[in-house]
Amino acid sequence: MASRICESVLVTGSNRGIGLELVRQLVDSPSPPGQIFAGCRDPNGSRAQELQELAKKHPDVVTVVQLDTDCPTSITAASELMKAKLKEKGLNLVINNAGVNIPGSLAETGKKEMVEVYTTNVVGPMLIAKEFHPLLCKAAAQFPHQTGLSCSRSAIINVSTLLSSIAMCRDNFSRAPMYPYRISKAALNMLTCCLAEDFRKDSILVMALHPGWVQTVMGGSQAPLTTAESVSGMLKVIASLTEKDSGTLLDWEGKKIPW
Amino acid sequence: MASRICESVLVTGSNRGIGLELVRQLVDSPSPPGQIFAGCRDPNGSRAQELQELAKKHPDVVTVVQLDTDCPTSITAASELMKAKLKEKGLNLVINNAGVNIPGSLAETGKKEMVEVYTTNVVGPMLIAKEFHPLLCKAAAQFPHQTGLSCSRSAIINVSTLLSSIAMCRDNFSRAPMYPYRISKAALNMLTCCLAEDFRKDSILVMALHPGWVQTVMGGSQAPLTTAESVSGMLKVIASLTEKDSGTLLDWEGKKIPW
Repeated sequence: MASRICESVLVTGSNRGIGLELVRQLVDSPSPPGQIFAGCRDPNGSRAQELQELAKKHPDVVTVVQLDTDCPTSITAASELMKAKLKEKGLNLVINNAGVNIPGSLAETGKKEMVEVYTTNVVGPMLIAKEFHPLLCKAAAQFPHQTGLSCSRSAIINVSTLLSSIAMCRDNFSRAPMYPYRISKAALNMLTCCLAEDFRKDSILVMALHPGWVQTVMGGSQAPLTTAESVSGMLKVIASLTEKDSGTLLDWEGKKIPW
Repeated sequence: MASRICESVLVTGSNRGIGLELVRQLVDSPSPPGQIFAGCRDPNGSRAQELQELAKKHPDVVTVVQLDTDCPTSITAASELMKAKLKEKGLNLVINNAGVNIPGSLAETGKKEMVEVYTTNVVGPMLIAKEFHPLLCKAAAQFPHQTGLSCSRSAIINVSTLLSSIAMCRDNFSRAPMYPYRISKAALNMLTCCLAEDFRKDSILVMALHPGWVQTVMGGSQAPLTTAESVSGMLKVIASLTEKDSGTLLDWEGKKIPW
């Protein structure tokens, strides 16, 4: 990335996997954002050590933020902290990456699993969008002469999946019969489109991004893509987004996925 | 309807609106089902009076069943009662009609509204599908020489909405910015497709049906369709469904709606 993706960005679920790699590649880029907020549920826990080390190496750029996307008070506390750091500039980009999967056939799926996965994968991104809306509006207003939408201006990226595609369910259900996950991600796609319409008047771009099938704790070791390859592709797509991409689902190579 | 839609059917949320009209038109048809189970949350409450009167007129056909689709123990109790009545025949058709809408802009929508609407509109139909799967399998097996799928054999109809279409969100969001409802119904569509794939081996048809914009408590008085017109169309579509319709979203006139 030669040019800067944006001035400020929040990445949720950034202590491991795709979230951690997003923070790493953003900070290592030739022209990194001025402020990277790395949200994670338990910043002092053992599973956030790698992120904390990365933050220590780049103390002026990376701020680790306690952020439990299921918890409204945690989200508000994070936005207060960020407001103080961002001052009048607002926040350009939110990457809703935090997510869970409880793999389960129908027999293994009950009310508890359905509500738990939905709460993290859909309610969380909705609460984040609500809370950060004023900061995103503020960032969009820094570009009064720009008419189009972009991630350098103001945007929300929701990390979705190929398995969210209702149109493709017939092709891939038997390989991944994951009820709570698929259903929550289709719901996330609808949230994405509602927000894209709702926030268009505020010049905020909203889209959903499929990172590919990636070698992470969630994706498993048989996945074809490394985390680095996926994130490199995702950041290229993010940097290239324009108004026409708001309200769409794209993969890490920029290819459109049907709903 | 000249020929019988099916031998036995469960309609959830049948105390009012579309659910009540489905029971009424089914029982009044020239060749009604042998058994109509009319599920409702509070059969003894004031809001179930009309249904109770209808059941009293047709005691051999209509059985009112206490059924709170949010509550696993209520669902199990209902299926036990129905099993005893259905004996070896199984259950041919489930119409998941029970649903709620908490209309709300983003500002009016919080975690509580999102989880409440999702639980009723998505988790409920999933729990119903799980619980009645053995009875639906039993019904399908009554037709050992039939290769195709149909509602007279074994099927689940999930009542969805045009507002569930992610592809059409851009066209209709501003007229109906209902976050919890739209998001839950897109999720219901994915559940529909997962079930359609999962249950294909058992010869059970699963599809989603948009009743149109109907003059009910939920639809409001400015809606263009009467409940009777909508339900008459829905029953024609239900009777005509074949294997190719499993895993689709159709409207009350049989027209396909994109995901």
